[in-house]
Amino acid sequence: MLNLKGIVPPVATPYRADDTVDTESLRRLIRHLLKGGVHGLFLLGSTSECVLLDARQRRVVLDTALDEAGGRVPVLAGVMDSATDVCLQHARDAKDAGVDGLVVTAPYYTRTNQAETIDHFRYLKDGSGLPLIAYDIPVCVHIKLARETIRSLAREGLICALKDSSGDDGNFRMLVRDFAGDGQARCDGAGRIALFTGSEIVADSAILGGASGSVPGLANVDPAAYVRLYEAAARGDAAAARKEQDRLIDLFQMVFWSSPELSAGAAGVGSFQVALKWMGLAEHSHMRRPNRPVPEAVQTRIRSHLERHGLLP
Amino acid sequence: MLNLKGIVPPVATPYRADDTVDTESLRRLIRHLLKGGVHGLFLLGSTSECVLLDARQRRVVLDTALDEAGGRVPVLAGVMDSATDVCLQHARDAKDAGVDGLVVTAPYYTRTNQAETIDHFRYLKDGSGLPLIAYDIPVCVHIKLARETIRSLAREGLICALKDSSGDDGNFRMLVRDFAGDGQARCDGAGRIALFTGSEIVADSAILGGASGSVPGLANVDPAAYVRLYEAAARGDAAAARKEQDRLIDLFQMVFWSSPELSAGAAGVGSFQVALKWMGLAEHSHMRRPNRPVPEAVQTRIRSHLERHGLLP
Amino acid sequence: MLNLKGIVPPVATPYRADDTVDTESLRRLIRHLLKGGVHGLFLLGSTSECVLLDARQRRVVLDTALDEAGGRVPVLAGVMDSATDVCLQHARDAKDAGVDGLVVTAPYYTRTNQAETIDHFRYLKDGSGLPLIAYDIPVCVHIKLARETIRSLAREGLICALKDSSGDDGNFRMLVRDFAGDGQARCDGAGRIALFTGSEIVADSAILGGASGSVPGLANVDPAAYVRLYEAAARGDAAAARKEQDRLIDLFQMVFWSSPELSAGAAGVGSFQVALKWMGLAEHSHMRRPNRPVPEAVQTRIRSHLERHGLLP
Amino acid sequence: MLNLKGIVPPVATPYRADDTVDTESLRRLIRHLLKGGVHGLFLLGSTSECVLLDARQRRVVLDTALDEAGGRVPVLAGVMDSATDVCLQHARDAKDAGVDGLVVTAPYYTRTNQAETIDHFRYLKDGSGLPLIAYDIPVCVHIKLARETIRSLAREGLICALKDSSGDDGNFRMLVRDFAGDGQARCDGAGRIALFTGSEIVADSAILGGASGSVPGLANVDPAAYVRLYEAAARGDAAAARKEQDRLIDLFQMVFWSSPELSAGAAGVGSFQVALKWMGLAEHSHMRRPNRPVPEAVQTRIRSHLERHGLLP
Repeated sequence: MLNLKGIVPPVATPYRADDTVDTESLRRLIRHLLKGGVHGLFLLGSTSECVLLDARQRRVVLDTALDEAGGRVPVLAGVMDSATDVCLQHARDAKDAGVDGLVVTAPYYTRTNQAETIDHFRYLKDGSGLPLIAYDIPVCVHIKLARETIRSLAREGLICALKDSSGDDGNFRMLVRDFAGDGQARCDGAGRIALFTGSEIVADSAILGGASGSVPGLANVDPAAYVRLYEAAARGDAAAARKEQDRLIDLFQMVFWSSPELSAGAAGVGSFQVALKWMGLAEHSHMRRPNRPVPEAVQTRIRSHLERHGLLP
Repeated sequence: MLNLKGIVPPVATPYRADDTVDTESLRRLIRHLLKGGVHGLFLLGSTSECVLLDARQRRVVLDTALDEAGGRVPVLAGVMDSATDVCLQHARDAKDAGVDGLVVTAPYYTRTNQAETIDHFRYLKDGSGLPLIAYDIPVCVHIKLARETIRSLAREGLICALKDSSGDDGNFRMLVRDFAGDGQARCDGAGRIALFTGSEIVADSAILGGASGSVPGLANVDPAAYVRLYEAAARGDAAAARKEQDRLIDLFQMVFWSSPELSAGAAGVGSFQVALKWMGLAEHSHMRRPNRPVPEAVQTRIRSHLERHGLLP
Repeated sequence: MLNLKGIVPPVATPYRADDTVDTESLRRLIRHLLKGGVHGLFLLGSTSECVLLDARQRRVVLDTALDEAGGRVPVLAGVMDSATDVCLQHARDAKDAGVDGLVVTAPYYTRTNQAETIDHFRYLKDGSGLPLIAYDIPVCVHIKLARETIRSLAREGLICALKDSSGDDGNFRMLVRDFAGDGQARCDGAGRIALFTGSEIVADSAILGGASGSVPGLANVDPAAYVRLYEAAARGDAAAARKEQDRLIDLFQMVFWSSPELSAGAAGVGSFQVALKWMGLAEHSHMRRPNRPVPEAVQTRIRSHLERHGLLP
Repeated sequence: MLNLKGIVPPVATPYRADDTVDTESLRRLIRHLLKGGVHGLFLLGSTSECVLLDARQRRVVLDTALDEAGGRVPVLAGVMDSATDVCLQHARDAKDAGVDGLVVTAPYYTRTNQAETIDHFRYLKDGSGLPLIAYDIPVCVHIKLARETIRSLAREGLICALKDSSGDDGNFRMLVRDFAGDGQARCDGAGRIALFTGSEIVADSAILGGASGSVPGLANVDPAAYVRLYEAAARGDAAAARKEQDRLIDLFQMVFWSSPELSAGAAGVGSFQVALKWMGLAEHSHMRRPNRPVPEAVQTRIRSHLERHGLLP
């Protein structure tokens, strides 16, 4: 049983110059996140460039993170791949590594429907025996986990939580009402699930509305602020939560600066990577191919931005 | 100069059996809304089935509403049509009727780009002289008013407010931060605009996050609850706002009951029309062609729903 | 009963400097088309900027065209508007003017489903008594007329033809097979309909595959070439048809030159308008607001293009 | 240098009861295709369920196919995966197996832009040294290879051919005109590429319009008919090509029978698998998880369909 709430950053993956996983930087980043007070760690998510890594590299990430986390917080692993059996291999690797839960999207490339997607979760639950967190990210997998699908997955005990990166915050709010009526979300297989927003910019709204927490990529850069935001929102202090959120929205603007030279995804992850480098957490800021590096001018602008936000060492 | 904040319902249009506008029911509905404490009235929006009415019928709606409102709250009129000059005719009619502001979408059917859309607002502002409220509703017009477009419209003094029905609540929150930093939104042509969400289900979040108010179709049915929600959120009482919001989310579920027999739009507006009939506010609940009527079984279910919510007379 | 086949251009609408319909230029354009041998005329289509015109202007277009055509070829009128009753007013005007058939899209702005769309056609058929041509243009109305919907409309005798501008040429080919198995498409209300592609660039393929003809906007500029293409394809001479088509594809490239400054629709119609001006058929080349004019440099480039194609007077 | 033209079926992957690749059935299928006269073989495409197979299974497919083909026709391998370095591993495996060319899509899951996609092809070309065939399949990867991107890839000598499964047949026709003006498409790195449609239903149109051939999934079932279609179209006999095409369109209808129970992709591939079983070419007809099996009733219907088409042994 997995007790999940609060801020669970999707941890970025730092690389060495030769494109191998920079385990030292990754350890440094995880210490930074734990020091910031985060409540869990999500490795191998979209921000981690999961699908750009092969099975061996994925395992290095998990082993490193689990060792560094040392059981202090739950560690989740994404098992993203196109279809069931390949995901299941990732799931078994992740279980073998010792993670506490798996984050699962709908299959992609294939044009799976809702029923086949429910089967996919069932196969992964049966095949791994680990708690599953559904990850709704239509911008990547191009199918939205329908409200009725989440309901089925929850009722059947196939998932214990949802990370909603769909951007459909109205639907998310209805899910919160459907599944967390008493404000006490738990992964108890009793039809109740924990609901996390993937949004960097309406995290306060989500938590004030009853969500269990947030999985914001930007928490790589400023975990402590998201933890403060969570704590304020969780105790109902809307004004304090909004103050943190509004500052974080300002910080977040750097994700738009590399567009359209870089694709939206690369521009976002790239800005986090550059920030981690300026903050002394990572040696390099490049992403894996075919993501292009953040332009020099934007890198410089990000440095000033971090300085203004008091985030440089 | 238009001072706009709070709850501004998009007023439904009741019809007689012969499909003409039922002005008596419309007056009754407006009295119901004013009694509920709403801060403004938006006639001829999507909920009003604006684009299904011809110019003459649109004028009947406006004349009736303005007469009944009697200057107690600002009255806005939608001027939706495919292109500039036809919209401008509606705008002149609406000005002639005496409305306080115009609600303007991007052109549709034509595949207008952002620059042409800015021109469209400029022509309507120049041609009408009235305050304009931008209405972002890509689900109907199939172009999203980009953040940069809103910025241009605000800076040029072309709009004094935005109604955001795009469902992109993250982008909306960034707009709130861009334009309402001090929490004091005004239609002052000084680059600051009032920001309204069109959402029925995250109205509390929007207002707690700094929005000026909400334009929820469901406020036709329960205006007083939305006014309470607004007041709670505006004074920062997140818990009280959420309590109202959660009840309204429950009430709102009726909009899904007629799908997929009816299209999503018709299922939503139709459920409001049926509720108004059960509440004794309207004689009939049918919509204009080609919208099909809400099925009998759903009508009955809506009656029980209203009863449970204490909304029957 | 309407006998329809061959090339039926969607006739552009020329304007005077003051934005009124330039009836003299419109007459000149129609003479140009008839001289080119076209088999019918489609007024008030997307190329005609139909939805940018009010009811009065639409009537001027129809009266002018019908008078100039003088019964030599069938004249069709688009009745595009958002919903049934407003379309029906246009339909009655068009019938009163004396057209031979009506071109009808799905409703737009409203999010009509397939069943409501079938109702829409039924109301327009009942209300007008004229032959209806279904116009499938999802890029404008944002609903695709499903294959099953076309089947229903044909079986019920509600439509006698389809203009397919959906770009889904595979589905179109299946419709041709469904409805024109013997290559003899007729508007006979016996479940068989005439199938026209709206494509400028695969007109030869469509006709060789069994379609009844084409409705290409570019035929405003070079009607004779499309008529030659049609005749070659209709007699099965693929090589001759392809030769005409390949030249027309080259001519067509001008529609891309104004993008992205103009929206795609305006860039296309605008290039035709500019060509008509250079060819001495129209006085002016501007479109209605908010369409921006084609940039000067592109206008000059179009002139050379026409010269190279031997289309200047 | 790869000389590619004609019918190049995307070969289905048969499985044993235990989900392993059924190499005996695969050999039988390849003999069936070669006997039908196909001009090449494309393994590990979408019809092959490529992305549902792990690296080891992919290699089994290639080794089996190459051995059975014995150099009689070119053998192509899809290297579909989410990002460059993982694709490159597949590319090296495929090169090691001995294929003649690689079929490459844009990256997916990641939201790669056109420039990053061009880089992706560059890395794969540099890393593999094999001829690349671009595979445009936005329905799976959710990015369309823009006309300008194809132009860049061709000019830089990065690709020697395109398989267009985008459904945008107008754009495809323009590409044919851009790159195959003399009707003699070659993989010569001189800016000229071979253009293949992925369509089952407008293959005749594509070839009559100048395409080099077709890559139709349905050719697994009836390769000889597609070869006859190709030969007729290539010699300009439109009537004969259409006759074959129209029969194949009828045969193709089985792909729609399992929807919406199965997703569109599974319904299509599933119907081919079932047909191969009835034709005695494969032992089993199931697909890999999470694809559901084609319902029994549809399987029976497919049997009658094949019988009517004279395709049962």
